[in-house]
Amino acid sequence: MPPSKDVHAEAPARGRLQLRSVGVSGIRKPLNVQRGGRTHALTVTFHVAVDLPSDRKGSDLSRNAEILAEIVDETVTRPVESLENACASIAAELLRRHPYATEASVDASAEYFLRQGITEAKRSFEDYTLLAEARAGRDARGKVALHRAVGAEAVGMTACPCAMESSRELLQGEYPDARAPSLRQMPVITHNQRNRTTLTIDLPDGVEIEADRIIEAIEAAQSAPTYSILKRGDEAQVVLDAHRRPRFVEDVVRELLASVPTRFPELTGATAVEVRSVSEESIHKYDVVASHRATLAELRPGGAG
Amino acid sequence: MPPSKDVHAEAPARGRLQLRSVGVSGIRKPLNVQRGGRTHALTVTFHVAVDLPSDRKGSDLSRNAEILAEIVDETVTRPVESLENACASIAAELLRRHPYATEASVDASAEYFLRQGITEAKRSFEDYTLLAEARAGRDARGKVALHRAVGAEAVGMTACPCAMESSRELLQGEYPDARAPSLRQMPVITHNQRNRTTLTIDLPDGVEIEADRIIEAIEAAQSAPTYSILKRGDEAQVVLDAHRRPRFVEDVVRELLASVPTRFPELTGATAVEVRSVSEESIHKYDVVASHRATLAELRPGGAG
Amino acid sequence: MPPSKDVHAEAPARGRLQLRSVGVSGIRKPLNVQRGGRTHALTVTFHVAVDLPSDRKGSDLSRNAEILAEIVDETVTRPVESLENACASIAAELLRRHPYATEASVDASAEYFLRQGITEAKRSFEDYTLLAEARAGRDARGKVALHRAVGAEAVGMTACPCAMESSRELLQGEYPDARAPSLRQMPVITHNQRNRTTLTIDLPDGVEIEADRIIEAIEAAQSAPTYSILKRGDEAQVVLDAHRRPRFVEDVVRELLASVPTRFPELTGATAVEVRSVSEESIHKYDVVASHRATLAELRPGGAG
Amino acid sequence: MPPSKDVHAEAPARGRLQLRSVGVSGIRKPLNVQRGGRTHALTVTFHVAVDLPSDRKGSDLSRNAEILAEIVDETVTRPVESLENACASIAAELLRRHPYATEASVDASAEYFLRQGITEAKRSFEDYTLLAEARAGRDARGKVALHRAVGAEAVGMTACPCAMESSRELLQGEYPDARAPSLRQMPVITHNQRNRTTLTIDLPDGVEIEADRIIEAIEAAQSAPTYSILKRGDEAQVVLDAHRRPRFVEDVVRELLASVPTRFPELTGATAVEVRSVSEESIHKYDVVASHRATLAELRPGGAG
Repeated sequence: MPPSKDVHAEAPARGRLQLRSVGVSGIRKPLNVQRGGRTHALTVTFHVAVDLPSDRKGSDLSRNAEILAEIVDETVTRPVESLENACASIAAELLRRHPYATEASVDASAEYFLRQGITEAKRSFEDYTLLAEARAGRDARGKVALHRAVGAEAVGMTACPCAMESSRELLQGEYPDARAPSLRQMPVITHNQRNRTTLTIDLPDGVEIEADRIIEAIEAAQSAPTYSILKRGDEAQVVLDAHRRPRFVEDVVRELLASVPTRFPELTGATAVEVRSVSEESIHKYDVVASHRATLAELRPGGAG
Repeated sequence: MPPSKDVHAEAPARGRLQLRSVGVSGIRKPLNVQRGGRTHALTVTFHVAVDLPSDRKGSDLSRNAEILAEIVDETVTRPVESLENACASIAAELLRRHPYATEASVDASAEYFLRQGITEAKRSFEDYTLLAEARAGRDARGKVALHRAVGAEAVGMTACPCAMESSRELLQGEYPDARAPSLRQMPVITHNQRNRTTLTIDLPDGVEIEADRIIEAIEAAQSAPTYSILKRGDEAQVVLDAHRRPRFVEDVVRELLASVPTRFPELTGATAVEVRSVSEESIHKYDVVASHRATLAELRPGGAG
Repeated sequence: MPPSKDVHAEAPARGRLQLRSVGVSGIRKPLNVQRGGRTHALTVTFHVAVDLPSDRKGSDLSRNAEILAEIVDETVTRPVESLENACASIAAELLRRHPYATEASVDASAEYFLRQGITEAKRSFEDYTLLAEARAGRDARGKVALHRAVGAEAVGMTACPCAMESSRELLQGEYPDARAPSLRQMPVITHNQRNRTTLTIDLPDGVEIEADRIIEAIEAAQSAPTYSILKRGDEAQVVLDAHRRPRFVEDVVRELLASVPTRFPELTGATAVEVRSVSEESIHKYDVVASHRATLAELRPGGAG
Repeated sequence: MPPSKDVHAEAPARGRLQLRSVGVSGIRKPLNVQRGGRTHALTVTFHVAVDLPSDRKGSDLSRNAEILAEIVDETVTRPVESLENACASIAAELLRRHPYATEASVDASAEYFLRQGITEAKRSFEDYTLLAEARAGRDARGKVALHRAVGAEAVGMTACPCAMESSRELLQGEYPDARAPSLRQMPVITHNQRNRTTLTIDLPDGVEIEADRIIEAIEAAQSAPTYSILKRGDEAQVVLDAHRRPRFVEDVVRELLASVPTRFPELTGATAVEVRSVSEESIHKYDVVASHRATLAELRPGGAG
């Protein structure tokens, strides 16, 4: 016999407010994604929530865990096509099983591995982070609208363009032969460091963006991508590549945003994208960060951005 | 002789976008606050940033570190009155030394200790978190507007009201004498756990809010505050107090918001406050979270919230 | 043409010391384990290291990444039987490819999911942590000895036995009818909280221990296991179970150690096991911790422990 | 009336084992240290524990919190001379108030600020970590022996000597004029990164080691120290300094250990010191780590290390 009293459905004792968001956070689940002929077994951290009307004491949180169990746990035998679409299914189901709610939100992040290498023979699994979110809203007539976003984070290297120029002056003072015109284009020493950059794209209805393309876009905007396996000659090559493209975090953000219209031509002008780039400075104990959010219309040549 | 070339001031290579935010993050500093006759030596983590115009390659980040050194480092000998006012000074100075910027943001968090105890004799330092932020904006005519917010996080206990009711039914089935009318109000077993709740207040101009009052408001909204030193009888008292006020995170958020108009009568109707409450459930491996943002007008009796 | 100069093989400039441990840390890899008819796709964090002789400047760390790529990356298509045996293969290979080394160590941890539930219908993936390590030593005659350990961490609930007794006295003072002899065994309120407990077992040669048995042993030693999906009546049942087995972290450690000889009869008397139990106290802002290490001989009835 | 029943003092239900360590962890406290004419207000994280005899169910943990309140909280008005001596006082008091215990351990870490700068005018607070521990043992006749250790962590920069040599070869291939004999000593590009290095010293009785000297020793062993405030020319100077002293983590550990006998002549030959150095590689997504532990006798010229 189930307990007779549903405390959640009672009226709140005090403070009869509608609450924007009530949910569960830090719930971890295995989720299988089938993409490009390969199954990716992800370990996902979810935050799922709905709003709560003013006349109800509590949100029925066990339903959130049940939905995750039904939708996510089942992907271990039947993979989904993408993390963001799993999030959208969860958001829609949250609204269905919390009939008192008008908004549902699902945020997900997962580690993700791609076989990469400086040469084919030196390929190995490199780790990235996948990001996905979904928002479901129910209007006064009960109609549900769904919004999805997909993103990724990639770790690469940045080399500082400013310190390279001031180091060149310093070196030329101590080593006059370094002023030879033939050496003017030779990259010189600067500080370089781990850089973490994130690109997130609000998906128009019906458009799917493969996460691998997002990762490719990020790595192309950093000074250089980094790899697990680098033999001596390879290290020199990565170092040289990075020093030939010295970049501030500001440069990474702008290069990445500027590349979006060409790389993702399927996106509409109203699509919003967001970039955040963090360099864990080798020359300081703190990080430097740049971020921006813009629509594709603003990013296209002649746009207002 | 200083280096001749200012790479930051050059035009960006590609992607001529104004960037919303460029700054330094995770920079840690000692800061002394003088309040109520006592000096609090805080260790603060800062994130400070400004926007960047489209015609400039980089932000002059060394100025951010200089400003922090001047304003924060000096408080070791000359304490400031509050963390949020130190943030406001930093924000204003950021705009002054980044003449190309139109917006500056400063976010700060710091551990904070108060002597608390279940009795006077058992007082000891309990740890809390102080939160502060400042935003400075410069309009087209060069006029600067400053906005500040102050907040705190307190860790306390929540006891679940729903599991208490269903446990009562289960116990009454096994122990019929527990149904005695005289025992109907006796608190029974439920799950209880660590709860972290944050209250942040957007400060109207000229209004100062003592962080201790924010902490007091939070602890009053949880099932019970917690203490370092509890002897056997004290533990029973805290457990009993918490079980006499069983609360969902939803209850904590509503009770706290409902208490704000009375506790902080100096706040105007347009003032926005934000609450977030997280219970690290003992009965689950994940957390439950509720959050809301409202204006004082919405929170006052008869308000629209 | 590979670079001609191997800086690692040069003599150290100063401080000609043999170094105990040089390696790579925080390297993350996908690893597939085939167990009990199911493939577990783990995301593993590795720390792998070898010692370094006094006449050599550096350790050839790219070999560590190559070994991980060969042994771990390949499990995505050919699963291994266990994480600890993958660690042992890596340790042996480290010694083979670092011919100057005499000791190799591999430490691994991974999130791990099991379908658990308070009833069959409410099963869902619960998350645990797998732990594994391997040590390989090479003696003066070149003979290699391998040692492995396997462990797991499980999160469950503990209810405090001391606060339950003092709360009972307090309640009986306020509710005299609670003193009825029929209610003497009824569990009463106390503080309860998330508990994280780890059991690690040094594996004798040729003995394999299934991680699921370790998790089962841990959960049996806590006051109660916890689950993702709990409807109202289930919550009451878990709460009641936990309050019928109130336990200090000291109790968890002793119960778990005492159960090892019976649960794992294949372990020899010289086998060492280690337990650590952390309760994230709901009544305090800090954690309480108990730990112990003992051999099976000490744990068996009549042992010296 | 205090509760009559002391559950901790009862016999354990099962598993009558002496436990090695039972205590509280993650307890945070403000602690004031008076050193060199300046008061450092530290925020310390403590782990304090004692062993537990086989005939006792639980450790009296509220005593641990009381001891911390008495010894640590009081330093806010009466500063102590050092963190490690506060730890020693706590360890001795733990044994006194846990009369059933034979061993007590105290581990402490705290953020620590020193005014540093590349020039006098650019000094600013840089953050470091202080480490301290104390162990107290009581022998069969009740005699207590105390052991202390003190340490610190400093973040600086390392530049890779191996990639510098292979980059030099690569550059000389592309820029033949870089082979000029006058440029042979000029540092060239390599990867550089944040490095975290820790030195811990077991203190002989009666010897005190100022933490600032430990920090100075660590920074001298890295490729270069790092600073908050660096203008353009300063950045070039730090970059050049680091590239003139390219170092593996292995080099950092050896240089630091080799410097200890000269820098700390007051240490006896039996004194053990431990070093750990982590480089957060800019060229990889993972860290590299080297560590070693040795006695001063082993480190002195002609020692066995």
